[in-house]
Amino acid sequence: MARQAYVNGRYVPQSDAMVHVEDRGYQFADGVYEVVPVVRGTLVDEDPHLDRLERSLAELRIAMPMSRAALKLVSHELMRRNRLSNGFLYMQVTRGVAPRDHKFPKAATPALVMTTRQTKPHSAQQLAEGVAVITLPDIRWKRCDIKSVSLLPNVLGKQAAVEAGAFEAWMVAEDGRVTEGTSTNAWIVTEDNKLVTREAGDAILNGITRTALLRLVEHEGIAFEERAFTVEEALQAREAFITSSTNFVMPVTRIDDKPVGNGHPGLLTLRLREVYEGHAAGAGAP
Amino acid sequence: MARQAYVNGRYVPQSDAMVHVEDRGYQFADGVYEVVPVVRGTLVDEDPHLDRLERSLAELRIAMPMSRAALKLVSHELMRRNRLSNGFLYMQVTRGVAPRDHKFPKAATPALVMTTRQTKPHSAQQLAEGVAVITLPDIRWKRCDIKSVSLLPNVLGKQAAVEAGAFEAWMVAEDGRVTEGTSTNAWIVTEDNKLVTREAGDAILNGITRTALLRLVEHEGIAFEERAFTVEEALQAREAFITSSTNFVMPVTRIDDKPVGNGHPGLLTLRLREVYEGHAAGAGAP
Repeated sequence: MARQAYVNGRYVPQSDAMVHVEDRGYQFADGVYEVVPVVRGTLVDEDPHLDRLERSLAELRIAMPMSRAALKLVSHELMRRNRLSNGFLYMQVTRGVAPRDHKFPKAATPALVMTTRQTKPHSAQQLAEGVAVITLPDIRWKRCDIKSVSLLPNVLGKQAAVEAGAFEAWMVAEDGRVTEGTSTNAWIVTEDNKLVTREAGDAILNGITRTALLRLVEHEGIAFEERAFTVEEALQAREAFITSSTNFVMPVTRIDDKPVGNGHPGLLTLRLREVYEGHAAGAGAP
Repeated sequence: MARQAYVNGRYVPQSDAMVHVEDRGYQFADGVYEVVPVVRGTLVDEDPHLDRLERSLAELRIAMPMSRAALKLVSHELMRRNRLSNGFLYMQVTRGVAPRDHKFPKAATPALVMTTRQTKPHSAQQLAEGVAVITLPDIRWKRCDIKSVSLLPNVLGKQAAVEAGAFEAWMVAEDGRVTEGTSTNAWIVTEDNKLVTREAGDAILNGITRTALLRLVEHEGIAFEERAFTVEEALQAREAFITSSTNFVMPVTRIDDKPVGNGHPGLLTLRLREVYEGHAAGAGAP
């Protein structure tokens, strides 16, 4: 059977999954989304993702399209219909359909779209060799903590990375400090062996994988610092990696075409990947 | 007959104007738009709008969805079908439909949507009394010269204005200078009687009405300066106004709840409105 999508109350073949041209998501990027990893048929960190969805919606004063319990029912039903075992669930909520006008419409029903995608395991080559990142000025708006679909600068950054033969672009604020990747959080293990990732705040999206990994790291008794780091510090680092719902923990072995550490995935990085994979496979908290 | 829209090759009733959920406009704000005023059945400054559309698309490396001549044919046909006399034509072009991935898809056909809206004349009360603006920090991305649908901060700014009882919000850069309104350009007539509006650049959208008015101003022999101004300077100004395709020239008589000049629409403002209305009605260059 063709893959299905859920669109505003109906399960439809994904090829027929349509929204109105005056959906504010289309005309104003007035909406938010979540990408939830699925491992062996189970959503990883489902509640933290829904917590963040609720927070993003609250920041934009968009109502939840349905209760959390109902969102879970729909998610699980869509996964069942699509026989989703490994991959991810995408959900997008917008302010809904209204005649085009910047201000919030008086009466609009939040729109809800869900899709799923089956994916292959992460490339063994990427895991063995690590990936390359480039650095770029961060030109995004000042509320990157909201997981909005206002992703055009992220698109341009990712494309620049691909064209430079890299996997990701790390965006750098005017003060020279890395904020995050275009769709990942950025981490390093410093010269003096400290695990560092930027603190949550308006400048980055607080990744669910990031947060889960921090909890796991704490549980493992590994020291870490939540603070911004510069590109220079990253270039001096022993290890570097990125985290995201689709990449889990992915080693970074080149930054702006210079090797990180010995040029191979770092030992702590690989250990953290294992720890996170255990978390994802168990879909339980540490 | 029901109002029609043009969507990817077809004229359809506007209520059936749908795009796919994986249109990159919906998931990534990966698209651009134009709003072209229509006066007595004629598009005002059609070619300058299409010039800017081409520029926005080129900046994002999205192909034109069809030739300029074809775009004009479709625009005019849609206006004819909708018997549009006064109002505007909305056109949106996105990178098209592709499985969700930040980087540019290898094969995607640019999507094109056009709608029209009949509008009433501008409120006589607003013109007689002028409108109020508030000022807000400019939290947008750094490529506001691209007329992208990445409008979420503009939406939030406009909503803040409405809730403060104002018509528009002027956004203020970190250096204390006004960039522009959420959907308009900002102008003042300074204490020493100089017409001032911010120069075009990455920080503002170069309005078609702004550009047309500058040409008209030049033609009228009125001195002007293209430079940024601070909120303080605006509060000391004799006159203030905003320009846009939907507002033409609209007097601003309050800024952050303080009166501008004598609190009434300025004389130069009203003269410029008349001059612009003449231009729009003639739909010809000066």
